[in-house]
Amino acid sequence: MGMAGGGIGAFIGAVHRMAAALDGEIELVCGAFSSDPQKSKASGEALYLPSGRVYGNYEEMILAEKQLPEGERMDFLSIVTPNHVHFGPAKMALENGFPVVCDKPLCFDMKEALELEKLVEKTGLLFALTHNYTGYPMVKQARVMVQRGDFGEIRKVVVEYPQGWLATKLEDTDQKQASWRTDPTRSGIAGAMGDIGTHAENLAEYITGLRITELCADLSTFVDGRLLDDDGNILLRFDNGAKGILHASQISAGEENDLNIRVYGEKGGLQWRQMEPNSLIIKWLDQPMQVLRTGVGDLHPAAQAHTRIPAGHPEGYLEAFANIYRNFAHCLRARLQGKAPDPLYQDFPTVSDGVRGMQFIQKVVESSKSNQKWVAF
Amino acid sequence: MGMAGGGIGAFIGAVHRMAAALDGEIELVCGAFSSDPQKSKASGEALYLPSGRVYGNYEEMILAEKQLPEGERMDFLSIVTPNHVHFGPAKMALENGFPVVCDKPLCFDMKEALELEKLVEKTGLLFALTHNYTGYPMVKQARVMVQRGDFGEIRKVVVEYPQGWLATKLEDTDQKQASWRTDPTRSGIAGAMGDIGTHAENLAEYITGLRITELCADLSTFVDGRLLDDDGNILLRFDNGAKGILHASQISAGEENDLNIRVYGEKGGLQWRQMEPNSLIIKWLDQPMQVLRTGVGDLHPAAQAHTRIPAGHPEGYLEAFANIYRNFAHCLRARLQGKAPDPLYQDFPTVSDGVRGMQFIQKVVESSKSNQKWVAF
Amino acid sequence: MGMAGGGIGAFIGAVHRMAAALDGEIELVCGAFSSDPQKSKASGEALYLPSGRVYGNYEEMILAEKQLPEGERMDFLSIVTPNHVHFGPAKMALENGFPVVCDKPLCFDMKEALELEKLVEKTGLLFALTHNYTGYPMVKQARVMVQRGDFGEIRKVVVEYPQGWLATKLEDTDQKQASWRTDPTRSGIAGAMGDIGTHAENLAEYITGLRITELCADLSTFVDGRLLDDDGNILLRFDNGAKGILHASQISAGEENDLNIRVYGEKGGLQWRQMEPNSLIIKWLDQPMQVLRTGVGDLHPAAQAHTRIPAGHPEGYLEAFANIYRNFAHCLRARLQGKAPDPLYQDFPTVSDGVRGMQFIQKVVESSKSNQKWVAF
Amino acid sequence: MGMAGGGIGAFIGAVHRMAAALDGEIELVCGAFSSDPQKSKASGEALYLPSGRVYGNYEEMILAEKQLPEGERMDFLSIVTPNHVHFGPAKMALENGFPVVCDKPLCFDMKEALELEKLVEKTGLLFALTHNYTGYPMVKQARVMVQRGDFGEIRKVVVEYPQGWLATKLEDTDQKQASWRTDPTRSGIAGAMGDIGTHAENLAEYITGLRITELCADLSTFVDGRLLDDDGNILLRFDNGAKGILHASQISAGEENDLNIRVYGEKGGLQWRQMEPNSLIIKWLDQPMQVLRTGVGDLHPAAQAHTRIPAGHPEGYLEAFANIYRNFAHCLRARLQGKAPDPLYQDFPTVSDGVRGMQFIQKVVESSKSNQKWVAF
Repeated sequence: MGMAGGGIGAFIGAVHRMAAALDGEIELVCGAFSSDPQKSKASGEALYLPSGRVYGNYEEMILAEKQLPEGERMDFLSIVTPNHVHFGPAKMALENGFPVVCDKPLCFDMKEALELEKLVEKTGLLFALTHNYTGYPMVKQARVMVQRGDFGEIRKVVVEYPQGWLATKLEDTDQKQASWRTDPTRSGIAGAMGDIGTHAENLAEYITGLRITELCADLSTFVDGRLLDDDGNILLRFDNGAKGILHASQISAGEENDLNIRVYGEKGGLQWRQMEPNSLIIKWLDQPMQVLRTGVGDLHPAAQAHTRIPAGHPEGYLEAFANIYRNFAHCLRARLQGKAPDPLYQDFPTVSDGVRGMQFIQKVVESSKSNQKWVAF
Repeated sequence: MGMAGGGIGAFIGAVHRMAAALDGEIELVCGAFSSDPQKSKASGEALYLPSGRVYGNYEEMILAEKQLPEGERMDFLSIVTPNHVHFGPAKMALENGFPVVCDKPLCFDMKEALELEKLVEKTGLLFALTHNYTGYPMVKQARVMVQRGDFGEIRKVVVEYPQGWLATKLEDTDQKQASWRTDPTRSGIAGAMGDIGTHAENLAEYITGLRITELCADLSTFVDGRLLDDDGNILLRFDNGAKGILHASQISAGEENDLNIRVYGEKGGLQWRQMEPNSLIIKWLDQPMQVLRTGVGDLHPAAQAHTRIPAGHPEGYLEAFANIYRNFAHCLRARLQGKAPDPLYQDFPTVSDGVRGMQFIQKVVESSKSNQKWVAF
Repeated sequence: MGMAGGGIGAFIGAVHRMAAALDGEIELVCGAFSSDPQKSKASGEALYLPSGRVYGNYEEMILAEKQLPEGERMDFLSIVTPNHVHFGPAKMALENGFPVVCDKPLCFDMKEALELEKLVEKTGLLFALTHNYTGYPMVKQARVMVQRGDFGEIRKVVVEYPQGWLATKLEDTDQKQASWRTDPTRSGIAGAMGDIGTHAENLAEYITGLRITELCADLSTFVDGRLLDDDGNILLRFDNGAKGILHASQISAGEENDLNIRVYGEKGGLQWRQMEPNSLIIKWLDQPMQVLRTGVGDLHPAAQAHTRIPAGHPEGYLEAFANIYRNFAHCLRARLQGKAPDPLYQDFPTVSDGVRGMQFIQKVVESSKSNQKWVAF
Repeated sequence: MGMAGGGIGAFIGAVHRMAAALDGEIELVCGAFSSDPQKSKASGEALYLPSGRVYGNYEEMILAEKQLPEGERMDFLSIVTPNHVHFGPAKMALENGFPVVCDKPLCFDMKEALELEKLVEKTGLLFALTHNYTGYPMVKQARVMVQRGDFGEIRKVVVEYPQGWLATKLEDTDQKQASWRTDPTRSGIAGAMGDIGTHAENLAEYITGLRITELCADLSTFVDGRLLDDDGNILLRFDNGAKGILHASQISAGEENDLNIRVYGEKGGLQWRQMEPNSLIIKWLDQPMQVLRTGVGDLHPAAQAHTRIPAGHPEGYLEAFANIYRNFAHCLRARLQGKAPDPLYQDFPTVSDGVRGMQFIQKVVESSKSNQKWVAF
């Protein structure tokens, strides 16, 4: 794999590298780690890459790697830059025959999103979007149970993503993460909604298989002088008649990263929290509450296939993230070998999930500005 | 105390009696326990009341008790009937000089509510509404901390009240509680929102001291043939600029009675759950999370004054409910003795909280029917 | 009911009164609340008792009450004095025909214990010991499940009772509870083991139905100058071959009142914590963990019979304590009415449990002083 | 790194590989994965190793690797075989100049242990033992807080390690893990105590810095026909006068891998559970309970240095395990480069911890057979 972005000091680049490395299936072979060539070099060196494979920018990397013989050149490109620099490397990689793993949200705006979607379709190349929270085994279990009807028709979905790290004006310090995420020229039209609201939206639709059809949003910017939303509350309506709530916040002071979801059907409901990801709480109308646990008992193969170690040995964020990479690598290898991939591994978010996320951002921002109650999605 | 309603088989009447009895300060001396005189008699007998103090209806009771000498006659009337039979006994009690403890919501509609409020003002009699969840010690602690500014300006409030007991059409069985709560001729214009949404609204305003100024509601009736809402999702805006979410549900299958609230300010936030009422979780921007516990350490006197036993001996729903009665009784006794009540005990919901709750019901129903985004409250 | 002990400022006396009052079945009619007649009077007045029924000491009370006509005199005596003043009033009450409810541990030493046991047998009077933790609904459920074999043969029992309130030399302040509990002339030969170790022993045998046959104890006194044990760790062996651990502590700094038990059999296990008493965690070899909740689903009638309010309305320490009183009162009334009591209500700790507890204290202290590994129990 | 053991189907070998790979600092370059050369080959192939670096046994590997030029040959040997095959490869590796990472317990018996200790001393080579639970950030934090005296003098330690996976005779199936762990010819003189009891002992001494000086053990074999202990309860005494309890079990049906520890001092206490490893609960005598969280607030640098990602992104078992490898690799690299290692990274279990663990096993087995109460440790 080659990497665009993720130089020294970046958060998500290191996460992608650990996730890719965990299973011993993917090797980092090259990178353009920074728009600053010096920094890119230094990063590559720290990562034990030969200097010839560390590039000054992504354009250079894609062109040079393309010249290398198959088997030596990077098999795919991982894009871990800020939002406004997703489209460029993704487009160029696809156009030059490289599959792509791209951080979320997909890109800067809808125009870019639709163009990428078309390009993926046209090239037929694999494209994964790292909505990593869907990589947890108990999220897979939840999805199976909801979609096979264990709880009957779904009536209500509550999905939350509270964080507190932007409760103060962190972007005025030199905190790199805060800086670009609150900058409309790099992040796009939304702040918290783009950064984490899309995770919540993706998780809700991934687990339930339902589609949001209408929404009513109230976005806020609580920190003075901030340029994008740092909190948002949204009413949802789904295509089967279910109702829901989505709220995401980066000013919920004291919250860490508490993505969580509750889904209720006619016969029961479930609850999952990212911060205790190995438990899936199941509640029934007339039977005792159950706590399904990673690795315990007869979980669905979809959950088992994304678990590495026996029950009681907690698997966390990196393991879930690694599941995206492992599945992507599995499918890529199958394709290279002309085999059919294991259906259990054909499970990672794609460019279409990314387009959906960009639409969500657009509709939420539109709704928040409108006096009309419902905006169709 | 005398009681209107609460005959054999009723849920809330027994709760009121246990709550009133707990501290040995209040004695049940008479009652009109049912609109069926036979049932009223049987109930009174089961409660060891002398037959002369068990009445066939509340009118009879109020008139008869008024004739008894002071000290012998009931000191106040407790009303535990369905919503549509709150106004009658409350009005008559007040007009005949009896203070009132009334179950919530206050009454059937706004007209009744405003008339009761005027009557309380005119008579100067004490009137308590049993929004019992505000009786918990850790709710008192939360209120003090929020209102004295521990968390800075409040930005976000999330209050939830999920239940699952009406996920099926329970009102078609002979379940008494379900029957009247889903019947618009007895419950009023709202179902879940009147029964438990008002508790959530009351808790949010009690703890924060903020006022809801606008709301946007989406009420649903999920169970076929049901006549009132059984679920509702609401966006809130508060008078200080804070935003919020309130949702209440009686179809969240598998949920018991999970009233809970989160409040976030500039510096930190809190979380309280009714089902684990002796813990108050406090989160800070830059310090470790704290778990305040009933009876542990230097809690505010307002919390201590509503705690009966040492730390680690869980106090529950009945104790919180009893705090409403104890405070009411304390204030009533102080008044009878011409003394000033202890300010820590002058803390129970009043007719004004009841009027606020009735307005909430009205506005939520209005908003839910409207295509306009915000309805002023 | 009459009461010996429990004057103003006492902890457990107030608990007994609230527990007795909760269900409206028991009325406090007289008391000798303190060995100081002035204090007894003041206490009686605060409790709204007529001055003629407030006595200077228990001897006076028992003799005077005996002279009153049946129906007017106290129906039974509740003893809430320190340990060394249990035997006197209990013996005299029994000898004068009064049933007894007595706080735990039963008395001061084995000699007293055996004499009381004989006296109960001889008089045939009802005698309840307030090992109140067995009054919780989920403890009843646990007991049923273990004893009907849901978990197969029991192999391991871990019962813990950590508190931290005596981590400093509280007895040097004027803290009344600490003072007598650490005084061998009032508490007996054990401190923590008598006060709370007996609760743990009682809970383990109550739930499992097993008998401890051997034990190996290591008691400690960590606070300088303290005269009795404030911590103890014990290995247990049970009559069916199961092994166990019991530890109790009053110097586990920061712990509140964390009585808890885990029981493991061949097929599964359970866990119950007093501080979250409405949950019973059930674990199975090959099935998901379950959380049984007070009031939810098809619990055994033994659990249901000790639950007052619907699921999700937490019931706590006082309600469990009240179950002892309610059951005692039910059996007493049945006896007075010549009826058979409801078997579900014939469930309260008796003098035999008290004798067992006194033996436990004796054996634990003996073991702790011994170099021999096992002491037969 | 080279690997001895850990062929296809092994549990702990895969764990070591993932742990070593996570940070991109260690590359697997060779292995003797099985005593069956065919299986070793197949395993090496599945791991993308060149066939020339996959050996038929560890002797062959060590000799062959030694012949390779520095920089190409393995830098150290990772031993992940069953207990009875730790000593051989460890001894030979050390004698041939290879540092060692070895799974726990150190070896088969005390004789081997002492010989290894001497050899490490003599060769001066780095030797890490994978008591991986000490790799968690919150264990580091706990250790700092206890040892710098935050809680005052330590009085009580409770360490537990319940599992349930051997509640049935799993060794009669073809379950590889169960098979050798219950076989005295491969596991040594202890079963559960060797496998997990040593983890508990190591954790208690690591966090507290105290030494166990006496113990009193009761080991059991509950499953018929099993040859080694599957459960054990132990009383502990520490060198500062603290008392403790250690129990470990593989027949606690329904338990996953619930290693946990509580430590109480004069001023407060702490609790840590491996299954929720990112929380460290701190309790104080007179202040609210705190929950320290990985990545939140001002944790000690020792905790921060072992954390990879921001708060709220759960890190689990593999990350803790990887901390052992990362620290070992850091120290090894520093040594190779002639630099001083970062003191925060000089923190991994060594051969001395291994000797201590073997002594623990020996003393526990000795105590369990003895009628004497205390065995010196």
